[in-house]
Amino acid sequence: MPHDTAPGRVQLVGAGPGPADLLTVRALRAIEGAQALLYDALVADEVVALAPGACVKIQTGKRAGRASMAQAAINRLMLRLARRGLRVVRLKGGDPSIFGRVGEEVAFLASHGVETEVIPGVTAASAAAAQFGFPLTHRGEARRLLISTATTKDGVAPDGGWAAAADQETTLALYMGRDQLAAVTARLIAHGRAPQTSAMAVENAGHPHARATRATLHTLADALSATAPTGPVVVIVGDVTAQAAVRAAPEAVVPLRAVGARA
Amino acid sequence: MPHDTAPGRVQLVGAGPGPADLLTVRALRAIEGAQALLYDALVADEVVALAPGACVKIQTGKRAGRASMAQAAINRLMLRLARRGLRVVRLKGGDPSIFGRVGEEVAFLASHGVETEVIPGVTAASAAAAQFGFPLTHRGEARRLLISTATTKDGVAPDGGWAAAADQETTLALYMGRDQLAAVTARLIAHGRAPQTSAMAVENAGHPHARATRATLHTLADALSATAPTGPVVVIVGDVTAQAAVRAAPEAVVPLRAVGARA
Repeated sequence: MPHDTAPGRVQLVGAGPGPADLLTVRALRAIEGAQALLYDALVADEVVALAPGACVKIQTGKRAGRASMAQAAINRLMLRLARRGLRVVRLKGGDPSIFGRVGEEVAFLASHGVETEVIPGVTAASAAAAQFGFPLTHRGEARRLLISTATTKDGVAPDGGWAAAADQETTLALYMGRDQLAAVTARLIAHGRAPQTSAMAVENAGHPHARATRATLHTLADALSATAPTGPVVVIVGDVTAQAAVRAAPEAVVPLRAVGARA
Repeated sequence: MPHDTAPGRVQLVGAGPGPADLLTVRALRAIEGAQALLYDALVADEVVALAPGACVKIQTGKRAGRASMAQAAINRLMLRLARRGLRVVRLKGGDPSIFGRVGEEVAFLASHGVETEVIPGVTAASAAAAQFGFPLTHRGEARRLLISTATTKDGVAPDGGWAAAADQETTLALYMGRDQLAAVTARLIAHGRAPQTSAMAVENAGHPHARATRATLHTLADALSATAPTGPVVVIVGDVTAQAAVRAAPEAVVPLRAVGARA
């Protein structure tokens, strides 16, 4: 039995990095109990398919040429569905609290008396590190992890925060890193991060068909460009990426080791 | 059937923030298939209990007065168990790539020809944010998330990284934040972070009995002290914490909403 959910309630759920077996058990239960599912473009088809057949499934993100819904429209839709008494699940790639606009959605729903529950997920940096076998922190070498975005809402590299990101003892994880990477790496170097710092771009982190491109901070943007990525890219800058189990350089396709399904 | 694992292989698995239903499905399968389980003190009993009855279970962390094992001893033990052909699972609280020493363990095992697989987990900052209903990033207000530690291996507050942590647009998550909090908050203020910045300490983030203490950066250390925490504490500094659904102040016990088990 799906758990009991009072009318007027929305679960904001982290879908993790992609594969269904990287959902948390709690997220899986929420999806399996959903009566209405609103999902972002980054959520994998195999995860959406876990919702019941009778569940209303609405994609809210840009994919396959379709335009994405405006945030205000998503908010109104969640509200309408919740007020119908449906068990509404709002599904977001990664962890909803990290670049997932969960604050805006929770505040909107709360202002209309709709209760929310947030279910956390595995964020892309953790997925990339696990998949390619390098740590995000490392004693005496990578003391901090900074998760930032390479793109503002206007599609350009952000103005501030460069000094922190340029610190040599900080592992930098850049989300939405594909299109602004050349501008971002140039700014990091201008702010003092060593051009020879090991860096890696991971397209579709967590997916079986993830691609890792390892280079230096100085060469990564060109190296990534050469792979013509089409999926979402997380960029990790820091010497920890030199530990990655990428056997071919500069581009390697390292499939996830299969973890067999139990009967 | 548990999946097939070749002899000489270790899975390094993130246990997430505590409750078994915040494990990923992949982590759950690994634990259920383990023949030898080495687990840190932060891993909850209910998670350890998921391993088969015949599985060798070894606690490696400090708990209940027992001393923790030295890293070198843990490494040798994993190696010995893997060489016996057992399916070895090394279980760590949170995400193994973030302050989990996964780099050291992977390097050691690789140097002895033992293959490793890392399974990511939900990190404590994500769990705290989800549980108490605030985001870690927020448009135009919290542009970055910095995950750092409040304690070095010598038990003191770290020397560097303060300017980045003091940036007003950065949400700072401090792991192992309980004992050095007064020193850390004083340094943040000295480096320019506003004393009135909203801040929150969460003891046992993710657990049903988590306790959140919200105050300002200036007052948080005293407020946390007054609650006499005994469990692990993650501290979140940033205006995003003002959005948290903590109804009583300065200390609130906000239990997780139960997500009922499926039949």
